[in-house]
Amino acid sequence: MFRFRTDATTIYAHYKVTKPLLGMPHMPATGVSGLDLYARDKDGKWRWVQVVRPGAQEMKLRLADGLDAGEREYAIYLPLYNGVEFLNVGVPEGKKFVGLKPRAKPVVFYGTSITHGACASRPGMVHTAILGRRFDVPVVNLGFSGNGRMDQAVGEFLTRIDAAAYVIDCLPNMNAAAVTEKCVPLVKQLRAARPDTPIILVEDRRNTDAWLKASLRKHHDDNHAALKAAYEQLVKEGVKGLSYVPGDHLYGDDSDGATDGSHASDLGFHRQADIFEPFLKAALGR
Amino acid sequence: MFRFRTDATTIYAHYKVTKPLLGMPHMPATGVSGLDLYARDKDGKWRWVQVVRPGAQEMKLRLADGLDAGEREYAIYLPLYNGVEFLNVGVPEGKKFVGLKPRAKPVVFYGTSITHGACASRPGMVHTAILGRRFDVPVVNLGFSGNGRMDQAVGEFLTRIDAAAYVIDCLPNMNAAAVTEKCVPLVKQLRAARPDTPIILVEDRRNTDAWLKASLRKHHDDNHAALKAAYEQLVKEGVKGLSYVPGDHLYGDDSDGATDGSHASDLGFHRQADIFEPFLKAALGR
Repeated sequence: MFRFRTDATTIYAHYKVTKPLLGMPHMPATGVSGLDLYARDKDGKWRWVQVVRPGAQEMKLRLADGLDAGEREYAIYLPLYNGVEFLNVGVPEGKKFVGLKPRAKPVVFYGTSITHGACASRPGMVHTAILGRRFDVPVVNLGFSGNGRMDQAVGEFLTRIDAAAYVIDCLPNMNAAAVTEKCVPLVKQLRAARPDTPIILVEDRRNTDAWLKASLRKHHDDNHAALKAAYEQLVKEGVKGLSYVPGDHLYGDDSDGATDGSHASDLGFHRQADIFEPFLKAALGR
Repeated sequence: MFRFRTDATTIYAHYKVTKPLLGMPHMPATGVSGLDLYARDKDGKWRWVQVVRPGAQEMKLRLADGLDAGEREYAIYLPLYNGVEFLNVGVPEGKKFVGLKPRAKPVVFYGTSITHGACASRPGMVHTAILGRRFDVPVVNLGFSGNGRMDQAVGEFLTRIDAAAYVIDCLPNMNAAAVTEKCVPLVKQLRAARPDTPIILVEDRRNTDAWLKASLRKHHDDNHAALKAAYEQLVKEGVKGLSYVPGDHLYGDDSDGATDGSHASDLGFHRQADIFEPFLKAALGR
């Protein structure tokens, strides 16, 4: 997320993404390769302004125009799945344009393709982004599509970030045996390096077709049980500052929270954010 | 929506869409060109099973497999923006496969690209589809992208359908002058042909960037005022069976209900369905 202040009523952007494939069959180019612009309203709340509809790998465009007069803070979310080779943001000559200093410590999310952002329709609609706006905190999104596996090497990297909280949300990429093997060591690794940073463990969401597939139900049941056992062991061993998010309702209860069964739509992300919110609130001491 | 009963645990589909462009920059191919499969659970509720991720104009695939044993009712929603040249659905040999008779009278929606389905991530996530499942009624979706304009010729077509209710949701494609000119005649045309069929008039949703754009706010204000005036005139003239859906909150209040400001995401469609629900409930006498 890139933040700035301006009094301009037109905002320009020029950027190039690293990969020519701009969208995916189950996720539009607005989410995969778009820039997503928000602004603070007069009450200080973040509200949506505009998203880029990418039509080429390099885009030079008016990101927003016809805005109400007034100086305010803006934020641009970067593309969720494509890389950014370069990004220039500008305003008309004579208008103010000021970059902004970092805010508080970030909330750090370590997870899978879901954390990564699949299948949000815009970069601002991942639950990590929604929560970042709700709490007005910076977010570090370490979602690794297919590879969120509670790895020690990633844990080592996590400990280098002075986080407001760590959210460990890897179970959709793991099975029960892997959870049993890796969860306790990862939490102990984080706790050894950061004695006071809250750590939130998250169960995997239920795939939205699991109601009709016994194999999926068993997979989720086993994963949940393994995470619960790891959590209870850690608590028993005296590890403090842990909390635990149940996964059953993360996408809601009507089977409509995902685009493809596994990956959240904007609806599913919004529901996830609602469920995460009280846990983060407690962790951040709000 | 195509309905059938089967006891198969694998369901196949073979279909071809009419246009080679499978997705749009702000709407994924799953929504534009996908088939979306639902089934009734043991309580009779519709729940999601699988969506096609289209990768070619002609798709021959296993739509679902590994399903729990048991005979149940399934429904396939057709692609939202692409046409269907042909569609074959099948099950393994020896399994039952029965088409189903039409249910009650349909709810008929006449509207714009939003009614048409932009930007749902799957065909089952348009508000018209969500409401069809909630009330378990057939739906006729007459959403005409860019061309939902309360036209007399469409009105003539609407009167030929013996509808459970008409929902007139054209304002996003109209301005106040057009609403003032065409709303009263359209309602009178429907009422003359169908004296008892409930008619629901819907204000346009607020674009999610309207909070920062005076021109958009004025557009919505004027449109709403014109529809309200038409509604009040009709009531005053004694037209019965009319109801009126305010548009301000159709996409929610956090500016996050649309993908591109105008067209709903799955979140916005879900919110729209929640607001439409009590009006349809009353219209259907439930």
